[in-house]
Order: sequence, then structure tokens, then C-alpha cells
Amino acid sequence: STEVKECENYFSMTLLDRRSDKRTDSKWLSRKQSHPATVYILFSNLSPLVTLGMGTERSQPPEVKLCRLYHKDVEQYMSQTEEVTLIFLGVELQFKNFMAARNEKVLEEEEDDGLVAWFALSIDPTSAEKFKEKHEDCYFLHPPMPALLQLTEKEAGVVAQARSVLAWHSRYRFCPTCGSATKIEEGGYKKTCLKEGCPSLQGVHNTSYPRVDPVVIMQVIHPDGNHCLLGRQKRFPPGMFTCLAGFVEPGETIEDAVRREVEEEAGVKVGHVQYVSCQPWPMPSSLMIGCLAVAVSTEIRVDKNEIEDARWFTREQVVEVLIKGNQRSFFVPPSQAIAHQLIKHWIGMNANL
Amino acid sequence: STEVKECENYFSMTLLDRRSDKRTDSKWLSRKQSHPATVYILFSNLSPLVTLGMGTERSQPPEVKLCRLYHKDVEQYMSQTEEVTLIFLGVELQFKNFMAARNEKVLEEEEDDGLVAWFALSIDPTSAEKFKEKHEDCYFLHPPMPALLQLTEKEAGVVAQARSVLAWHSRYRFCPTCGSATKIEEGGYKKTCLKEGCPSLQGVHNTSYPRVDPVVIMQVIHPDGNHCLLGRQKRFPPGMFTCLAGFVEPGETIEDAVRREVEEEAGVKVGHVQYVSCQPWPMPSSLMIGCLAVAVSTEIRVDKNEIEDARWFTREQVVEVLIKGNQRSFFVPPSQAIAHQLIKHWIGMNANL
Ligand SMILES: Nc1ncnc2c1ncn2[C@@H]1O[C@H](COP(=O)(O)O)[C@@H](O)[C@H]1O
Ligand SMILES: Nc1ncnc2c1ncn2[C@@H]1O[C@H](COP(=O)(O)O)[C@@H](O)[C@H]1O
Repeated sequence: STEVKECENYFSMTLLDRRSDKRTDSKWLSRKQSHPATVYILFSNLSPLVTLGMGTERSQPPEVKLCRLYHKDVEQYMSQTEEVTLIFLGVELQFKNFMAARNEKVLEEEEDDGLVAWFALSIDPTSAEKFKEKHEDCYFLHPPMPALLQLTEKEAGVVAQARSVLAWHSRYRFCPTCGSATKIEEGGYKKTCLKEGCPSLQGVHNTSYPRVDPVVIMQVIHPDGNHCLLGRQKRFPPGMFTCLAGFVEPGETIEDAVRREVEEEAGVKVGHVQYVSCQPWPMPSSLMIGCLAVAVSTEIRVDKNEIEDARWFTREQVVEVLIKGNQRSFFVPPSQAIAHQLIKHWIGMNANL
Repeated sequence: STEVKECENYFSMTLLDRRSDKRTDSKWLSRKQSHPATVYILFSNLSPLVTLGMGTERSQPPEVKLCRLYHKDVEQYMSQTEEVTLIFLGVELQFKNFMAARNEKVLEEEEDDGLVAWFALSIDPTSAEKFKEKHEDCYFLHPPMPALLQLTEKEAGVVAQARSVLAWHSRYRFCPTCGSATKIEEGGYKKTCLKEGCPSLQGVHNTSYPRVDPVVIMQVIHPDGNHCLLGRQKRFPPGMFTCLAGFVEPGETIEDAVRREVEEEAGVKVGHVQYVSCQPWPMPSSLMIGCLAVAVSTEIRVDKNEIEDARWFTREQVVEVLIKGNQRSFFVPPSQAIAHQLIKHWIGMNANL
């Protein structure tokens, strides 16, 4: 379902068709769980298990790859229910599976539909230690940032989905409406309060569904069209500058969130805002909405509570850093970050907005 | 901070500057709470208190307006802490206040900065009854839909913000990480777990901040450019058709969510997706992200679990219903809904995409 893609950001591509229709088909899910072709991705503490593959050419550095495990590798960890979370991620998008999917309606229930299902399995730290002892070539990518950025684009998309849902389960264990315990349903995409009579059980409420936090991130252009506004937070590595960003608030549009954040953080007023592209960011579960924003004022007043510095950079300065790799004065985030893509998008544009 | 607006959807305009910097200034907040110029909007069960104002011309129907209350009107309800929630909404955007804001840094702490603050106050049903007895010309807009759509655009924006944050407090009373009670902070925009040692207190977590659910809503265009795909859910009034829509999932882009939802609900494949505009929708706290989507297949297979019907409508059919108000065959949502605006946007467009 993803033939045409205008938006090929890191974390946004995927190997899988989510097949959300299968989440309520518990028979199908349990058959797939023990099917020998089913792929399991293991997580511990929200970090995926990976291994080093050899690059196609000998001179290339080794590739960080997800460990694709099978039912036999993980079944012993799936019995302990307490600390274990299982998420159905989807089925492989390959052509032969696609054909199988089209015919699946005519298959007998118990027959194999040929779909290769993927699951994410999160295990407790003790089991994770045991697992690593048995599989010496595997390790958990920890801390996740920037380590996750070593994955290939397609595997990063799988991890984005899995990590976001697992992070939701790890932080949202109890019903926020009444404080009771919950149970996980629908392949990991639903959470239901276990207390009879809880108001969360009457009607549909977002308390039952994974959280996605919309964030605006914006390349702010100077009224002269030849400078852009980049800022830095205290916790950034020295010399790094990037696009301003912030969470969309309740009752706010994307465009107003852009204007509010730029004015709050840098004291600069923004007029026209244009959506460019977006990127899921699984730290833990943001949707980064990338925009181009045209400033209508130029004086910078930095809010020191929010950021450490913000400056206008010339197009030439940015081209040098981005294209020529000249990093003497400052640098920007790596190409996997949407900020990098937004800055690059501006560089590729006409000066006259 | 909102001079230029390309996106004037209902629920997206506002009378207020949020002034999020004031949320942590508890002295300022408490001074404003008892200031005689401060405006209070009252809510009961997530519905705002309104009154009927006369239209400017006698022949016009009466206008539904928010009741703007003052501290003296509400102070007796603010003492009961248990069932009462207070949200700081912002300060009035008027020019004279804007000037005052610019000078406010030089004012003495106790001096009046001239800013007119607005708060939303949610009271329990018993207090709400008592209040109505004393103020016979006021009533709570219940059920909220479609009643909220009677408000003026600017007041609707205030209600969108207030209702979203209040709905978060009403459904998220307990810490989802440990199930303990929480306390409200930062003018209503933060929630902190009261249990010492709770993991939610280490670092920054979205459990502490209001939830905003991104939803894609899309006008799907037939490959011939002259038909659009509209669907209906069972719970809609008979004859109503509208754009398809669905929640963005974790690890998913806006564009992929559009493709997934259209294929899931109607079996139609989508190629290019283009962002058009967005709208906050306070039921309870969605961000509707409006897109134009170009279909690359035409056969419709309706998923009866999700929708009741979906059909291709010709441009002429849609023009008739939308512009000429001919509603014999079907109708679309009112102009306050982003679906209406998306459909209208398409009508106004060239046939050749
Ligand atoms: N955050 C959410 N809030 C409510 N429903 C959700 C959410 N995420 C996914 N859903 C699903 O979307 C359905 C409601 O969609 P709708 O009919 O468009 O309001 C629910 O029955 C859920 O299965
Ligand atoms: N959903 C959210 N998750 C985390 N932080 C949030 C959220 N909404 C608002 N915030 C605020 O945004 C700050 C973190 O922003 P940032 O530095 O951009 O990650 C936090 O300190 C909070 O004050």
C-alpha cells in the first residue's frame, strides 16, 4: 500500500503492511505466533536486538541489522506474562505475499495464507541477559539515540512502529481514568481497564489507544530569503544548531503552533507557514511535522528557559556545512533527522520565496 | 502572534495569546485569578456555559455566546478543590494589551500589567445546577455536538483549547505509569504523579502533558480528476456523506496514514498525498490533518466494520450539494467542519491534478 512516496524520511519507510484488520482476529494471530516463518524482533528496555552484518563490499563497514528471530528462539520467554509485551507489527510487503493476501479470502481457516507476520517482543532485563549469553553475536542498541540511526531505512521504520507502541505500554500500565490495572488486546494496539464500571469502558476513549504526539519543526526563513534561523539547546553537542521545534498544544493548528514556538523561543514573528513533510520519531512516539516558516520580524530574543542560542545563518554558511561538509563553525543534525531534510530543502530552493 | 492566517478553520481562531511562559509564574497566575478584569468561562461535564445575545440586526437570530464571568461570580465554586479544575487559557490579544505586554518587564511585580487573563473553570454537576438557578439566562451547551458549532469562530477557538485540556484532566486523573493520584500544575497544562519514586518523575514523559491525537482526513480524488470518494458511518444522519478519516498510528507518516485508511476503509489505493490545512477538533482533543489524496485504483470494497458505504461522486453532484444547496440526493457536513472545507477546496480547483 505504499507504492508512491513523496516523503522518504528515516523512520518513515517500512518493510511491512500493518494489516490492522488482523489485530482483532485472535485465531489468526495465535496461529501466526507459532508459525515457523514468523519473524520476531526482540526488545529490552525499548532497545532492539541487533547484530553486525557484513557490507556487500569488503571495504564497507559492517551493517547494523535487526536480529530476525523465530518462534523457537523466543518461545521460552513468552510464557512469563508479567514482564513480556507482544506487538503484532504487520506482514511482509513482498510481492508474492501480496498475491497471497489477495487470495486469502478463499483459503480454509486452518490453511497457510503465505503471509509472513512480524511481531515485536519485549522481555525483562534478566531474560535479556540470558538471551545474550546464548547469542553472543547479538546486542541491544542502547542507548537508543543516536545508535538507532545506524539501522537501514526500512528496518528503522519497523523499529519506529514497535518502539512507539512498546513505550506506550511501558509508561501507560494503569488506567488513567481510575488507576486500575489494564489488559493488552488487539495485537498490542488496545489497552482495556480491568475494573468493572470504569468510565473508560463506556464508549470509545483515547485512554485505550497508543499515544502519538504531534510536534512542529520548522525551517524559519529571514524576510530577505537568504538567512535561516537555527537554534541550539543546552544538552546538544557543542557546535550543533538545528531547526526550532515544539509540541502542538490542544486546540491549536500546526501553523499556529509554528508561530507560537518561534515567537516563544526566539522572539521572532512568523507569517506564512507551509507544510513540507513529516517523520515519525520514536522517542517515544512523536510525529514530527516539518514546515517552512517565513519570518516577518528579524530581531532575536532568546528565551533562555527553552533554548541556549538562536542565530540567523546565511545560505552560504548552511551550504558549506551541509554540502561541503565544512564543519568548522557549526554543524547540523545527520541526514536521518527531518531537520537536516528541511534545511536541505531550503538550500535547494529559490531565494525568492 | 497570529497576524497572518492561511488556515481559518472553525475551532482554529482564537481571541487569546496562550502566554505559556506565565504557566510557571504562580504568583502572576494567582494575582490574575482574583483580578476584577479576569474572564472566567464556566464548564460542566465538558460543556461551556453560554447565553443568547441579540444579533446586531433585529431580524437576525439570537447569537449563542460564551458567558464571560468574573472572579466574584465564580469564587464560591473555586474553594472545593476535588471536583474543580482551573485552566489558564491566555490573555486577550487586543492591541492595547499587546503594548502593555511589551512593557511588562519594567513593571513592578505587584503592579497591574494590563493583561486581561482568561481561565476555564470546570465545576461539578451540583454546583452547575446551583449556578443555573442563580443565572436564568445561562445554560450549558449539551450535548456539545453539534451545539458547539453555534458559537462564533473566535469563541469556538477558546472552547476548543479549554475543552481539550479539561477532557484530558477528566479522563487522565491517575498516573498511568503507577496508578497513583496526581496533582495539576502549570496553569492546568501539567500533571504530576504524587507517588515518590514513580518512574514518571524521572526525566520528561508525555504522561505529564495533555494529549493531542493526530487524525488524517482526506478528500480522495478519482484518477479521472472528476470524481471524489465520500463515505458514511452507520451513526451518521441518513444521507450524510463526508471525507474518509482515521487516527495516525505510532511510527506512521501523515501520507502513509492517508493511504492505509483509504485502503482499509474503501479498498481504494492512493498515490500522491498533499497536505491542505488542519483543524483542532475538541472531541476530545484531535488534530484533524486535512489532505488531498489522488487515487490510483477505482474499485470500491467497503470494510463494513469501519464504514457503512463509500461512493464516487461527480464534481457536478458535489457542486450542486455544496454551492446550490440542493440536498435531495445527499449532503455533506456543515461549513465549520474541515471535511466541508476540503470538499470545497477541491471544487474550487482545476480538474487536471
Ligand atoms: N486515539 C484514539 N481515540 C479513539 N479511537 C481511536 C484512537 N486511536 C485509534 N482509535 C480507533 O478508532 C476508532 C474510532 O474511530 P472514529 O470512528 O473515526 O472515531 C475506535 O473504535 C478505535 O478502534
Ligand atoms: N507530550 C509531551 N511530551 C514531552 N514534553 C512535552 C509534551 N508536551 C509538552 N511538553 C513540554 O516540552 C518540553 C520538552 O520539549 P523538548 O525539549 O522539545 O523535548 C517538556 O519539558 C515539556 O514542558
